[in-house]
Amino acid sequence: MTTETARLEAFSDGVFAIAITLLILEIKVPSSDTGNLAADLLRQWPSYLSFFVSFAFIGVMWINHHRLFTHIKKSDDTLLIINLALMFGVIVIPFTTSVLAAHLGHPGARTAVIVYDSAYLGIAVFFNLLWRYAASRDGHLLSKDMDREAAEKLTQQYNYGPLAYAIAIALAWVSITASLLINLVLAFFFALPPRYASKHIPARKAANY
Amino acid sequence: MTTETARLEAFSDGVFAIAITLLILEIKVPSSDTGNLAADLLRQWPSYLSFFVSFAFIGVMWINHHRLFTHIKKSDDTLLIINLALMFGVIVIPFTTSVLAAHLGHPGARTAVIVYDSAYLGIAVFFNLLWRYAASRDGHLLSKDMDREAAEKLTQQYNYGPLAYAIAIALAWVSITASLLINLVLAFFFALPPRYASKHIPARKAANY
Amino acid sequence: MTTETARLEAFSDGVFAIAITLLILEIKVPSSDTGNLAADLLRQWPSYLSFFVSFAFIGVMWINHHRLFTHIKKSDDTLLIINLALMFGVIVIPFTTSVLAAHLGHPGARTAVIVYDSAYLGIAVFFNLLWRYAASRDGHLLSKDMDREAAEKLTQQYNYGPLAYAIAIALAWVSITASLLINLVLAFFFALPPRYASKHIPARKAANY
Amino acid sequence: MTTETARLEAFSDGVFAIAITLLILEIKVPSSDTGNLAADLLRQWPSYLSFFVSFAFIGVMWINHHRLFTHIKKSDDTLLIINLALMFGVIVIPFTTSVLAAHLGHPGARTAVIVYDSAYLGIAVFFNLLWRYAASRDGHLLSKDMDREAAEKLTQQYNYGPLAYAIAIALAWVSITASLLINLVLAFFFALPPRYASKHIPARKAANY
Repeated sequence: MTTETARLEAFSDGVFAIAITLLILEIKVPSSDTGNLAADLLRQWPSYLSFFVSFAFIGVMWINHHRLFTHIKKSDDTLLIINLALMFGVIVIPFTTSVLAAHLGHPGARTAVIVYDSAYLGIAVFFNLLWRYAASRDGHLLSKDMDREAAEKLTQQYNYGPLAYAIAIALAWVSITASLLINLVLAFFFALPPRYASKHIPARKAANY
Repeated sequence: MTTETARLEAFSDGVFAIAITLLILEIKVPSSDTGNLAADLLRQWPSYLSFFVSFAFIGVMWINHHRLFTHIKKSDDTLLIINLALMFGVIVIPFTTSVLAAHLGHPGARTAVIVYDSAYLGIAVFFNLLWRYAASRDGHLLSKDMDREAAEKLTQQYNYGPLAYAIAIALAWVSITASLLINLVLAFFFALPPRYASKHIPARKAANY
Repeated sequence: MTTETARLEAFSDGVFAIAITLLILEIKVPSSDTGNLAADLLRQWPSYLSFFVSFAFIGVMWINHHRLFTHIKKSDDTLLIINLALMFGVIVIPFTTSVLAAHLGHPGARTAVIVYDSAYLGIAVFFNLLWRYAASRDGHLLSKDMDREAAEKLTQQYNYGPLAYAIAIALAWVSITASLLINLVLAFFFALPPRYASKHIPARKAANY
Repeated sequence: MTTETARLEAFSDGVFAIAITLLILEIKVPSSDTGNLAADLLRQWPSYLSFFVSFAFIGVMWINHHRLFTHIKKSDDTLLIINLALMFGVIVIPFTTSVLAAHLGHPGARTAVIVYDSAYLGIAVFFNLLWRYAASRDGHLLSKDMDREAAEKLTQQYNYGPLAYAIAIALAWVSITASLLINLVLAFFFALPPRYASKHIPARKAANY
């Protein structure tokens, strides 16, 4: 039985909006009081940096979710469950962000970055799965009048997600900074509409719809 | 006076989305600092376990709520109040999850599991009530063109909910692990669409619509 | 310029859903650890009681908001601002609930109850104002095919709100228990659809629409 | 590719509703216990003041967002990203409010006010950008039957936002009170519908649509 996607989108919008807003709770008023508030605030840079990266990531994931559901017009139980797994990844981010903020520049930074990147890897896998499932069986959950070329480009772009985040994790052993930088680059890459993004990646045949 | 269900669904989506996202606030950055972040993180397994069970439970309850309201198309004051009671159960879960996470593997674990299961029992009772009320008086709040067989299967599935969670509570006296495992099995059972679920339960006549 | 009420309702649903769910954050896992979790949990009864009263109150206010906006079909800037003032009252409740929970059965309980009731008084005043404004100028923001008798009954019921909560505040000087009880009675009264509620209150001519 | 604005509005409503409701978490039950709850509560006036100013600001920003999207009827990737930047500003407010509440009447108050005003300046800039972009290229994202005069008035009103908040920041060096007062005046100014607001500002030709 297939149903409309309105409630799936409303529930997901709620989760995205709450997770992105909860990030701010991680940033605390400086407890140290040296009499110089500006300096006390600046000392918290790891919190701001991880807040900003997480904000950009969740925001871009929301844009991607929005983009997918301009194509996906029907829902079934399997899609609901894949989407729930995706939301699991989104909800975990305020925690992994806290872990990162608490350990950047301290011992344990490497472990923190790996934990942090792992949540993103999971999300990339479930985004991939969500789109593959919806596009499977000749696009059985997609809009009837969808743009086939746009869908193909989306598939190409999403095929790179899990691989790219796996590389970010591997990079953490070499350089923490490089691993975090790659996260920002990937956020930018997934923010791009697929037609631009795919200009920069070698064309491939998308076989699964 | 009956009205549409749009706002009831929007309010419920909000509560589900917030309750499921608040669960993450229970998971704290390790305060102990042994210099080994990985070990510090792993020591928090009871938090992750109860987070995961609660996430699965709330997610599945949302899927069930969604499923019910593909059949329920009208609302009245009684339905609003039953739904509010159901939301009470959902909102309580972040608290019962915290209690569980704080006591798993410590004295008081049994009490914690019973408190935890009780919230689920309450939710199962109110889900049952919600559906029975909507389906009563010849389905006065249901869609006119609904699938009668699907509704019957739903009634059968829901009849097992309160009983199953009562058994989970009783089991807590024998084995805490068994009681928590049954929760995961039940989440899986209610995630299944009724047509599959009912294959595994003896057919019974559903009399109340 | 009048607009549709869809976004006003969505924003309000969000605020109601978040405020009602945040209430649970007030209930903490018992920090005292006497080895008897059940006793530790029961000792927190003031938290549960104030949680329950606040939950019932916000839930019923949501039902009332929903009920009003089955009649109100248009919005303008003044309505948006009155609604915002109403949301102010709703958002304040998690705080007044915390104050109440922390002081029930301790010195300061009277002050806590008065603070608590005052938020409700404010909400009752703004509900009254919201409805009066929408119904003013021959119901300029109401649905064209609305039930005039239902609207009149709603006006009657709402006229009692501010008075009733003012009495609840006054009662707090005599008896804290009585003041809290009256809150529960009022929640029940406003949960009732106006046609039943108005059976129990003397008929009066509603003049303002 | 342009799409509808429904999900952009739903996501934004969620963020506004959560950010405005989270403000209350900043107001704590008095920890000092002098036996006089009323006095303990009153001592927290900086929290109430900054809560109230922030509530008014976010509420008015929501009204403005609502007002813009009665004109903006289509969305594209650029608009999604500008809107995300705007949401960044909104989400930051609970933090800047905490900083302000913790330092009003203490050393560091000036720095706190400047941090606080800066978030508003950012929001004003992104509101301006959002509207300019939507109105650009002959209003390519605006409703076809929009009121051109209303749009022009909106442009005039929004042109003053960034300048006004820059002045508020500058004023903080002279007087903290004056800087906060100007915030309240600006909230009031932006709450006004543009047709009233523009009566009080010199007419100018709006050139960008």
